Amino acid sequence: MNFCSHCGARVTLRVPPGDHLPRYICDACGVIHYQNPRLVVGCVPEAPDGQILVCKRAIEPRRGYWTIPAGFMENGETLQQAAARESQEEALVDVEIGTLLSVVHVTSAHQVHVFFRARLRRPDFGAGPESLDVKLVTPDEIPWEDIAFPSTSFTLRRYLEDRAAGLERHHFTEFSFRR
Amino acid sequence: MNFCSHCGARVTLRVPPGDHLPRYICDACGVIHYQNPRLVVGCVPEAPDGQILVCKRAIEPRRGYWTIPAGFMENGETLQQAAARESQEEALVDVEIGTLLSVVHVTSAHQVHVFFRARLRRPDFGAGPESLDVKLVTPDEIPWEDIAFPSTSFTLRRYLEDRAAGLERHHFTEFSFRR
Repeated sequence: MNFCSHCGARVTLRVPPGDHLPRYICDACGVIHYQNPRLVVGCVPEAPDGQILVCKRAIEPRRGYWTIPAGFMENGETLQQAAARESQEEALVDVEIGTLLSVVHVTSAHQVHVFFRARLRRPDFGAGPESLDVKLVTPDEIPWEDIAFPSTSFTLRRYLEDRAAGLERHHFTEFSFRR
Repeated sequence: MNFCSHCGARVTLRVPPGDHLPRYICDACGVIHYQNPRLVVGCVPEAPDGQILVCKRAIEPRRGYWTIPAGFMENGETLQQAAARESQEEALVDVEIGTLLSVVHVTSAHQVHVFFRARLRRPDFGAGPESLDVKLVTPDEIPWEDIAFPSTSFTLRRYLEDRAAGLERHHFTEFSFRR
């Protein structure tokens, strides 16, 4: 951030009075520009036969690697609505969002990833504009070596463990790394 | 948003190619400025005798009304760390963060509120700079008529219900209103 998005003047980075962290401050109009973590929301869509839907990314980062439907949450929607919308956009599927599955703090990227269990309402699926390929896989067929993100691997492993145990738990973890 | 925070040029609000929502776009440098929901994180701190810690707000919005420790999540921290930090700042307490309690979508404010159960590690507490008063209350003493936010009331009610039932569930809800 170099300029004030409100008035267009240059901003400076310093700790405001009474605060404890540096912020981008506009001395021209007085606005303090706070920067906060963004929510990335997705789900593990399961077919009636137990297969799981995975998507091959058509966009960077990690183009060509496999993931599950997920993306940035938009203003005005719930976490569940975001997860369903991303599933529709990336895999052209209609999902029923279930219980909370995982919360992954990607602290170095200033992101919080939230995943839910989900069920396919209809058997139809296909590759949306952000996917090169979409397919249903059994647990043995999950391409673990080619999964796009650590939060995806973590979420899929917890999903399978819980399913094998007959439980619907939720799991917190943190990944911190430089990209 | 009027100006590009990257280059200082005026931005325009329109739907980018391949997108489905209007975004602030800078035609000078090409940056698209996405706007996403912010996370507000807090907890219900419980004393060993079962009393609950509440804070009277010293700042707007809702100055003079009662709440539980909560505030905007910062970059680089986990949800649990944010809830503990806010408790320290607002009520000068050292808390052990417990299980997930509530997720409140305040869609009209572009916020997601997340609350945890918590325990006071030490009996000390006091009013931080953002609080006029901090006190421990029994369930009967909770000032329901003077609670600052609907997400606070929702969270406290679910907390007490679950405690009475001997359960540690988590609860989703949505509040949408114009301020």
